[in-house]
Amino acid sequence: MRKPVGNSWIVAGVLLALVLGTAQSARGAPPRYTPDWLSLDSRPLPAWFDEAKFGVFVHWGVFSVPAWGSEWFWWHWQGEGQLGYQLFMRDNYPPSFTYGDFGPQFTARFFHPDEWAKLFQAAGAQYVVFTTKHHEGFTNWPSPVSWNWNSKDVGPHRDLVGELGAALRKRNIRYGLYHSLLEWFHPLYLLDKKNGFKTQHFVSTKTMPELYDLVNSYKPDLIWSDGEWECPDTYWNSTHFLAWLYNDSPIKDEVVVNDRWGKNCSCHHGGYYNCQDKFVPESLPNHKWEMCTSLDKWSWGYRRDMKLADVLSESEIIAELVQTVSLGGNYLLNIGPTKDGLIIPIFQERLLAVGKWLQVSGEAIYASKPWRVQLEKNETSVWYTSKDSAVYAIFLQWPEGEVLYLKSPKATSTTRVTMLGLEGDLKWSKDAYEDLRISLPQLPPSALPVEFAWTVKLEGVK
Amino acid sequence: MRKPVGNSWIVAGVLLALVLGTAQSARGAPPRYTPDWLSLDSRPLPAWFDEAKFGVFVHWGVFSVPAWGSEWFWWHWQGEGQLGYQLFMRDNYPPSFTYGDFGPQFTARFFHPDEWAKLFQAAGAQYVVFTTKHHEGFTNWPSPVSWNWNSKDVGPHRDLVGELGAALRKRNIRYGLYHSLLEWFHPLYLLDKKNGFKTQHFVSTKTMPELYDLVNSYKPDLIWSDGEWECPDTYWNSTHFLAWLYNDSPIKDEVVVNDRWGKNCSCHHGGYYNCQDKFVPESLPNHKWEMCTSLDKWSWGYRRDMKLADVLSESEIIAELVQTVSLGGNYLLNIGPTKDGLIIPIFQERLLAVGKWLQVSGEAIYASKPWRVQLEKNETSVWYTSKDSAVYAIFLQWPEGEVLYLKSPKATSTTRVTMLGLEGDLKWSKDAYEDLRISLPQLPPSALPVEFAWTVKLEGVK
Amino acid sequence: MRKPVGNSWIVAGVLLALVLGTAQSARGAPPRYTPDWLSLDSRPLPAWFDEAKFGVFVHWGVFSVPAWGSEWFWWHWQGEGQLGYQLFMRDNYPPSFTYGDFGPQFTARFFHPDEWAKLFQAAGAQYVVFTTKHHEGFTNWPSPVSWNWNSKDVGPHRDLVGELGAALRKRNIRYGLYHSLLEWFHPLYLLDKKNGFKTQHFVSTKTMPELYDLVNSYKPDLIWSDGEWECPDTYWNSTHFLAWLYNDSPIKDEVVVNDRWGKNCSCHHGGYYNCQDKFVPESLPNHKWEMCTSLDKWSWGYRRDMKLADVLSESEIIAELVQTVSLGGNYLLNIGPTKDGLIIPIFQERLLAVGKWLQVSGEAIYASKPWRVQLEKNETSVWYTSKDSAVYAIFLQWPEGEVLYLKSPKATSTTRVTMLGLEGDLKWSKDAYEDLRISLPQLPPSALPVEFAWTVKLEGVK
Amino acid sequence: MRKPVGNSWIVAGVLLALVLGTAQSARGAPPRYTPDWLSLDSRPLPAWFDEAKFGVFVHWGVFSVPAWGSEWFWWHWQGEGQLGYQLFMRDNYPPSFTYGDFGPQFTARFFHPDEWAKLFQAAGAQYVVFTTKHHEGFTNWPSPVSWNWNSKDVGPHRDLVGELGAALRKRNIRYGLYHSLLEWFHPLYLLDKKNGFKTQHFVSTKTMPELYDLVNSYKPDLIWSDGEWECPDTYWNSTHFLAWLYNDSPIKDEVVVNDRWGKNCSCHHGGYYNCQDKFVPESLPNHKWEMCTSLDKWSWGYRRDMKLADVLSESEIIAELVQTVSLGGNYLLNIGPTKDGLIIPIFQERLLAVGKWLQVSGEAIYASKPWRVQLEKNETSVWYTSKDSAVYAIFLQWPEGEVLYLKSPKATSTTRVTMLGLEGDLKWSKDAYEDLRISLPQLPPSALPVEFAWTVKLEGVK
Repeated sequence: MRKPVGNSWIVAGVLLALVLGTAQSARGAPPRYTPDWLSLDSRPLPAWFDEAKFGVFVHWGVFSVPAWGSEWFWWHWQGEGQLGYQLFMRDNYPPSFTYGDFGPQFTARFFHPDEWAKLFQAAGAQYVVFTTKHHEGFTNWPSPVSWNWNSKDVGPHRDLVGELGAALRKRNIRYGLYHSLLEWFHPLYLLDKKNGFKTQHFVSTKTMPELYDLVNSYKPDLIWSDGEWECPDTYWNSTHFLAWLYNDSPIKDEVVVNDRWGKNCSCHHGGYYNCQDKFVPESLPNHKWEMCTSLDKWSWGYRRDMKLADVLSESEIIAELVQTVSLGGNYLLNIGPTKDGLIIPIFQERLLAVGKWLQVSGEAIYASKPWRVQLEKNETSVWYTSKDSAVYAIFLQWPEGEVLYLKSPKATSTTRVTMLGLEGDLKWSKDAYEDLRISLPQLPPSALPVEFAWTVKLEGVK
Repeated sequence: MRKPVGNSWIVAGVLLALVLGTAQSARGAPPRYTPDWLSLDSRPLPAWFDEAKFGVFVHWGVFSVPAWGSEWFWWHWQGEGQLGYQLFMRDNYPPSFTYGDFGPQFTARFFHPDEWAKLFQAAGAQYVVFTTKHHEGFTNWPSPVSWNWNSKDVGPHRDLVGELGAALRKRNIRYGLYHSLLEWFHPLYLLDKKNGFKTQHFVSTKTMPELYDLVNSYKPDLIWSDGEWECPDTYWNSTHFLAWLYNDSPIKDEVVVNDRWGKNCSCHHGGYYNCQDKFVPESLPNHKWEMCTSLDKWSWGYRRDMKLADVLSESEIIAELVQTVSLGGNYLLNIGPTKDGLIIPIFQERLLAVGKWLQVSGEAIYASKPWRVQLEKNETSVWYTSKDSAVYAIFLQWPEGEVLYLKSPKATSTTRVTMLGLEGDLKWSKDAYEDLRISLPQLPPSALPVEFAWTVKLEGVK
Repeated sequence: MRKPVGNSWIVAGVLLALVLGTAQSARGAPPRYTPDWLSLDSRPLPAWFDEAKFGVFVHWGVFSVPAWGSEWFWWHWQGEGQLGYQLFMRDNYPPSFTYGDFGPQFTARFFHPDEWAKLFQAAGAQYVVFTTKHHEGFTNWPSPVSWNWNSKDVGPHRDLVGELGAALRKRNIRYGLYHSLLEWFHPLYLLDKKNGFKTQHFVSTKTMPELYDLVNSYKPDLIWSDGEWECPDTYWNSTHFLAWLYNDSPIKDEVVVNDRWGKNCSCHHGGYYNCQDKFVPESLPNHKWEMCTSLDKWSWGYRRDMKLADVLSESEIIAELVQTVSLGGNYLLNIGPTKDGLIIPIFQERLLAVGKWLQVSGEAIYASKPWRVQLEKNETSVWYTSKDSAVYAIFLQWPEGEVLYLKSPKATSTTRVTMLGLEGDLKWSKDAYEDLRISLPQLPPSALPVEFAWTVKLEGVK
Repeated sequence: MRKPVGNSWIVAGVLLALVLGTAQSARGAPPRYTPDWLSLDSRPLPAWFDEAKFGVFVHWGVFSVPAWGSEWFWWHWQGEGQLGYQLFMRDNYPPSFTYGDFGPQFTARFFHPDEWAKLFQAAGAQYVVFTTKHHEGFTNWPSPVSWNWNSKDVGPHRDLVGELGAALRKRNIRYGLYHSLLEWFHPLYLLDKKNGFKTQHFVSTKTMPELYDLVNSYKPDLIWSDGEWECPDTYWNSTHFLAWLYNDSPIKDEVVVNDRWGKNCSCHHGGYYNCQDKFVPESLPNHKWEMCTSLDKWSWGYRRDMKLADVLSESEIIAELVQTVSLGGNYLLNIGPTKDGLIIPIFQERLLAVGKWLQVSGEAIYASKPWRVQLEKNETSVWYTSKDSAVYAIFLQWPEGEVLYLKSPKATSTTRVTMLGLEGDLKWSKDAYEDLRISLPQLPPSALPVEFAWTVKLEGVK
């Protein structure tokens, strides 16, 4: 019974080979991965990803046109029939207006990819993940199998994926492509679903050809897969794709992927783990992970009805970033541009605040490793990271009395304590319990090296 | 080298079977057609078509939105880059407006299929051929492989093909579906073209699935194929489709097709022949044919810039109809509705004039056969038809002196002459040359039974 | 209590003088008209109007955008709240869409005034009356007191009144301006109405300044006043305007006006009489009149929902024209262009049919005078006109037996009978009752000089 | 020569009386102001205004639709023909698109006046000034003399001025109305300009009727006049309006006005002084003044292209507020809502930051008076205010070493020093130069009572 599926898959492969002109795959020295998790999971994660620590996530699509509620607008409106969405449409559009009718209004008229890239660089991002296609199915590049429902034919009339990539590369920022396997309302997906996912019409003619096309056309550093949850990886043919990606694709050496490749894969298989959205582990995991979160607490796509109280504060962001890195994760912070292609000032402000903080504190973040302790036990807000022999203690509240106590690091005769962003050593001593007692400088607010979280660097400790 | 193509086609067949739920037909008694022209061309034409004689053609699509120039708007504008079209766009739309952006404006808001059907019936049409998809690729029904570029997702938000079909069937009008094999700008078609039509990505995932879907969903009486000219039938897989259509489709007994199934097919293979647009043979052909023409001399789709002088006059239409039927053809007369779904009054007027004429003269047209002579030699405007033993002489100009001379029919002792629409026999005699000399009644204009062409019925002639 | 009103009127006069730069004319020789009907009604009608006989009326405005129902769209929708109009809006537009929102869609993009003028000339029109402002208040010229609700600021971005005038003058067609005194929803008009028309805010700041502006800017040959019915002429200040128009305006010698200048004026005062729309007197009136009617029986403005059956037929038009002229009237035939500025083909066809008929029959129409008899007593369809000593008998049905009997004209020895459009004299005789018995030529339909109505010219009859 | 003007003005007065139902006020006891500056300038300023200190300014109109460049969009585009604006229009709109065409897109669909009012209250604003009509002439209320160019007929379809007023009053926030005397492109204004402002057509039929209407309809607490600069007050008839406003209007007791009533008036006549935009005096003026400024440094209206760097920072705002109040001024801080009626989060953030600061520091601001010294001489950032016997020293930088030196206040035996927002007294002493030496508390950043500026309250000083 799997046979026709297999056949159709082969044909799709042929199709892809033809479409995309993939030659390649030296059958030379290195061992080849087989399309099963045992083999695929054994691949080492390319080093750049763990070193990057901080990335920016961008959700942009036709959902940016109604820009109301969330990027799940279409689903809430017509998949679930939520009353609020129905009223929104009734009150603002002619009867029988469809989601497709929003397409031409996605103008992107002020989209200047260089300005985005400059902002992301100023934010200290080492990589950027961009929605090439969300669950709505609209592709932000001229996909040959999404005619008239892509950013070249309708709306922007531009290759958004390509343009952003070019601008990022100029600044040496790694480029990740978000890709939704499912499309809520694609007729062939609905047909496969009706067939209990025993057929793969959608996979073979739409979602897989597009994924191959993305890899071949844009050579991303990262593939951020999503929309996998309704079907097993066998439906999606994910392992075949990953085997090709790891063995034969033009980006086989550097590419990183996440873990959303089929029902029950997430947190168990793939490259690094995202697990659920905004997931944070309680203790140090033994597998590389990434925490993705959004500046707008309630939406990943831009929505006009976002209020100030819905936006993560700068101190919340820094706290999350520090916690995540201390626990071995990467922090991927999302913004949703407007349909015009603008990143609104409040998002600029938040991103630049991260960049400002990282300019001083980046030493403790980028390319750091978790230390043997992550969180200071008797203190809720000191997080540790390490690099080579240095240990970094990052504290989120300035202690009263200007004295910081640290229980975990053990001082030695060579111990030296400094604060990132300040000249000179800090005085320290051991207290009765052998805890490290560090005297912080006494500074007016404007003289502090950073806001929100301060980093003490410990050298010569155990 | 044809193998991958063959494979992909088989898969497409599987796809189709799955998508469309094609019940495999009984492999019973009747001989089966094989997918080659020798076999396919041997199929007898279902009788209804030759009897129908007069049909209405309808061109409707996204081209009805700019409604300027012709239904080839997109091609003239962006395929050929004609200056006039470029200026039209520059003067009336924002820069970078695409053809796809016209989609949402195709509202069909006043489309009442019952009113169309009523009009076509009043026009005397026995069949109607409707554009399901023109070269622009927009489908007038919810095609599962044309997502967001079809009339259900965008614009009308209705199944135009289905609605019109239902209205026609209520009035016992046969339903034909126009379908363009090619799509000017479909990325997969362009890819196949780049590959010298050695690949069939477009055929297997787009145009053939749609053709099967049309047959299964709407069970048309006629398939009016078009857009075949750039590639051989082997690219299109036409013979396979036709074999299925004739052997196994739900409409195998009644369906009629035309001759546009591949480069060099037209006028040589298929069902009846269209040959070129507006083609009229010089003498009686030995194969059933159809003359298709348009009320607007310069466009098949509605265009706002049509002037009165561009519209076929009522007398021109009647003359063409008479000539066509006399020469054994069917007459398919085209109108282009507006983007709103209205048939403009001048088109109503022309169609109703045909209906009025046929109400009196239909006896000489419907279910008639060509006579042994078609055109009276020494008279440019007498055309013959026949039915059983009756011969009909249709003359396009009322003779001076009220006497009609006919050379071809040979009178006998039982000869009887009447005029359609008038009571009583006409006086006749033989003249010196044995020609039939028929005395027409002397009538004021308002008392003539019809306008434009009058029919003398001859019984008992040879 | 009338005093402030009077004052405000004087101020408005000052305003007008300043705005429009009206030079006060020389108070020289000719007697001056006083602003009362006794004086104004005594003015002789300039000769050109009676000689013109046939004109084309054009209704164009924002109502051409919804183009549904009639040009009274706004009133039916929001003045009366008719259900059909409310549903039309609900089904096709977003909630709270206003009539004002239609403005930008009135594009006039295909408005070529020269083509209009050419068509009207081919129709045989001697004058054209154009809506400068209908009851909706939108002005088709850049009125300085209708900011952002005129054709220059919104929609066409052109001076429609000026452009059409220039094109007509090039062809020596007289130019009439339709002007509605009232505006259904103008706030100042509504205020005056609330005040029982004891205030004249609307008159002094809007409708009268515009009327003066029209006269000074475009120097029309005719002012076709309308919208007068709710208030007496004293509210409108009509008599003051007319006195200025007749005494001092730049068009005082040639200008013609109609009779709609205040409640109870119509059919009693002013220039020629329109009385009600489409009014036709039963017998010859003693005052010059004009019958205005519309090709679309149910609307003056273009409406998309017009069906063929709603359009006056060519024979109806010719019959009305003949009857009107025979009874001493002018015939003003209306068409409504589309929002794009196009005159649809069915209207072109009707107008050109009139032109074709007039090319042959114009001798009996243009500059003709009523005869002593208008309608042949014992025959419903022979209408008489005359010119100098010639009498024209226009018959609407071709008589059976090709003999026309006329009772009224008395033959003499010099009597000569011809048919317009045919060479040669017709044979005639007197019958037993002294009636004139005219032998018509025996002609096939295509040889008749015209369709619909034929004219016999009688010379030397009494 | 002034006579016609005077007359027309009287008529306009009559018009206004009729239109607006102005009850003529009692000519009772209080002395009446005459329409000249000597008299008008003698009116005492109602007390509430000086006590209010902080207000929010709102610029909203059709310019919020293009939302690009600034609220002077129309002028830059078509008045000056700036290239950037011309390109913006060329690249984004069809040719011949006019400013008026923007009107229907001004939807205000998310305008919830209660949310605005709540935000302004949280910002600590005691009054709000709202643009009823900017230089573009579009009125944000249903002006009877701005038909189809106002917020009721076009766009929002709502009375914006009325709705905002109702919401503010519920929260006891004073309501000011911004009104532009001139309208860049109003035809009657252009006519008056052409006449060297010797005529007043625009004044008598447009701008003054509207100003009276605003007063009578909305009873504002403040009239913020603008757009006066091209003509003398005699053209605008400002002194007559102000005499009526002070003597007879329904708001004569409480209303406050600014100084922009005619060329050369600003900074010399009227109520309080604005002088130029963003004007700040160098030393304490002897006349009440107001500094108006905008959160967006380069625009008063919302513009999509605003970047973070263009927004006043929170510390800049607090510094300006403190300086202004210390110098006896009021601080009016502007925001521009989007065409949808939303106040973007960055503006919310800034306003809430002010509110947060005022919650602690408001005692030193609201109802305060300037002290004998404004700025501490040898220190650039200590500003003084006073209330009754208390003196407030507001310092913008926290001094190193936690000691604040003040030269101007002279300590006495009863001197007591506290910091707003902190419990308990601060220690102080005199130094060698008799300067006040105040010991500030030693606090971690998170324990400071406010950010940006701190207030020391001095009691018992001279």
